[in-house]
Amino acid sequence: MAVYTDVDDAELLDFLSTYDIGALLSCKGIAEGVENSNFFLHTRGGSFILTLYEKRVRETDLPFFLNLMEHLSAKGLNCPQPVKNRDGVALGRLSGRPAVIVTFLDGYSIHHPEPAHCAELGAALAHLHLAGGDFSMTRPNRLSVNDWRPLFTPYADRADEVATGLRTLIESELALLERDWPRALPTGVIHADLFPDNVFFLGDQISGLIDFYFACTDALAYDLAICLNAWCFGPDHFYRRDCGAALLDAYQRLRPLNVAEAAAFPMLARGAAMRFLLTRFVDSINVPPGALVRPKDPKEYLAKLRFHREVAAIGDYGLS
Amino acid sequence: MAVYTDVDDAELLDFLSTYDIGALLSCKGIAEGVENSNFFLHTRGGSFILTLYEKRVRETDLPFFLNLMEHLSAKGLNCPQPVKNRDGVALGRLSGRPAVIVTFLDGYSIHHPEPAHCAELGAALAHLHLAGGDFSMTRPNRLSVNDWRPLFTPYADRADEVATGLRTLIESELALLERDWPRALPTGVIHADLFPDNVFFLGDQISGLIDFYFACTDALAYDLAICLNAWCFGPDHFYRRDCGAALLDAYQRLRPLNVAEAAAFPMLARGAAMRFLLTRFVDSINVPPGALVRPKDPKEYLAKLRFHREVAAIGDYGLS
Repeated sequence: MAVYTDVDDAELLDFLSTYDIGALLSCKGIAEGVENSNFFLHTRGGSFILTLYEKRVRETDLPFFLNLMEHLSAKGLNCPQPVKNRDGVALGRLSGRPAVIVTFLDGYSIHHPEPAHCAELGAALAHLHLAGGDFSMTRPNRLSVNDWRPLFTPYADRADEVATGLRTLIESELALLERDWPRALPTGVIHADLFPDNVFFLGDQISGLIDFYFACTDALAYDLAICLNAWCFGPDHFYRRDCGAALLDAYQRLRPLNVAEAAAFPMLARGAAMRFLLTRFVDSINVPPGALVRPKDPKEYLAKLRFHREVAAIGDYGLS
Repeated sequence: MAVYTDVDDAELLDFLSTYDIGALLSCKGIAEGVENSNFFLHTRGGSFILTLYEKRVRETDLPFFLNLMEHLSAKGLNCPQPVKNRDGVALGRLSGRPAVIVTFLDGYSIHHPEPAHCAELGAALAHLHLAGGDFSMTRPNRLSVNDWRPLFTPYADRADEVATGLRTLIESELALLERDWPRALPTGVIHADLFPDNVFFLGDQISGLIDFYFACTDALAYDLAICLNAWCFGPDHFYRRDCGAALLDAYQRLRPLNVAEAAAFPMLARGAAMRFLLTRFVDSINVPPGALVRPKDPKEYLAKLRFHREVAAIGDYGLS
């Protein structure tokens, strides 16, 4: 949860005067989002989200994210749509930060996903991958297999503070992932962070996907593996085969995995667990004084990694 | 900014099913409010604020706050109105906390008040005091003159970390305030925390007052002194005579101060500065690890206290 930058009312009124969205009615900081400052913005023209991009987001990446949201919206995917100002430009500047207004999506996050939610997610993810098929821009995944060791090494000697033996486990696991990582799978636009927080439901149906600020070009099946990690384990961190089966099955109905993707899937799931284990670990020991975000528990992803190490084939995840 | 308690979607749906406000569309934590967890709640029935009361608010005080908001609303003051459930009860329970839904008010806070805003504030404060005149409940002010020394003493030896000589200054000032504090002024319901954050504007006009969780029964003129401290100093902490004159003048047009209130006003302003100096000081040295709130600077109120010590009479504030 975070609002890192306060917005002055006078500056906000100036900023809004460049848009055709009517007079300001309300603007409240939202206690969500780790990377950026987000505000619920209500004007005579409707409801919006105002985002100020903080330093963790590279300004040169913003056109990729904004054009992607616009592309996906045009393809019928329900995601925030950047609002352009009177000059036809979506990317502005407010309080010294790059700033964007996007449309507001109704819906709320599901905290304890059940198989029906995972099936909805599988279909939405396949829809996203198919809709991204003709998106012309690319962006490398800066948190993929080659980035994990450089992320870990500076903090390696503190890993055992999280769990005894964690350093040894991560180092041997990294060696294996670097050696065996599948590098020739079908690629395209992936969301790369489609956690329950970033998926809105109304009743039993998905009403929208948000937060495309990790989106990049990478193996599509890796995105599915990230979702399996984020959605298909219970609060006790035990794998839920019913949820996993529902996710994989619904995804494949719209976009069947090819033989190579299916064979690589356990390795992709292991890598996805490693990626979030590492960022959570590094975040947990880098909490700055006065941080406005509670770090997430790295041990959750250690438990998931251990589970995937025992998986032999995609069928073990419950795929029928 | 803070959301201390996460709300589970399933629990929220259960909770909302006891109200007649339509299906849930959205619920987002708001990065505002130091005492409670607040959520922007959007349903088919409209927009609301959902508040979960955290431990700093005494549950036995909640009927006072809720009935006060209802009373003031009925008198035409624009403030959040508690929404009752189907059993006619406003105070519920969610995520193990007392919980209330109130109506959402449009408007936004002014960061740099000018005399026109202070005049609006003066009128709104007088309106509040007059509308509270026949409110039947009472609640003692637990942050008044007799509470300041017990608040300060446990941390007295750390005061000079804020500013050299602060301990001596506070102790001599407390002795004077305890001796000379005006105790026989007209009393009634006061807001006691009417900072710019808690006053909403649409354009140049006040659209509503929020956050009644410090409201209590105390000298009405003390509330005006709190506002003068909060609204009538520039970002450099210098007194703005134009703002002060506008505030006092607009207030008195609706509720003229009597002779005793006018004579006591500089002492009330000094006490108000002391009250916020002390709570900010204590909060600044009590920031818990993992705090989600940035402590406010106590030195701002030290500067204001020093200013009031030089004031001889209410006329010095610019009252015409």
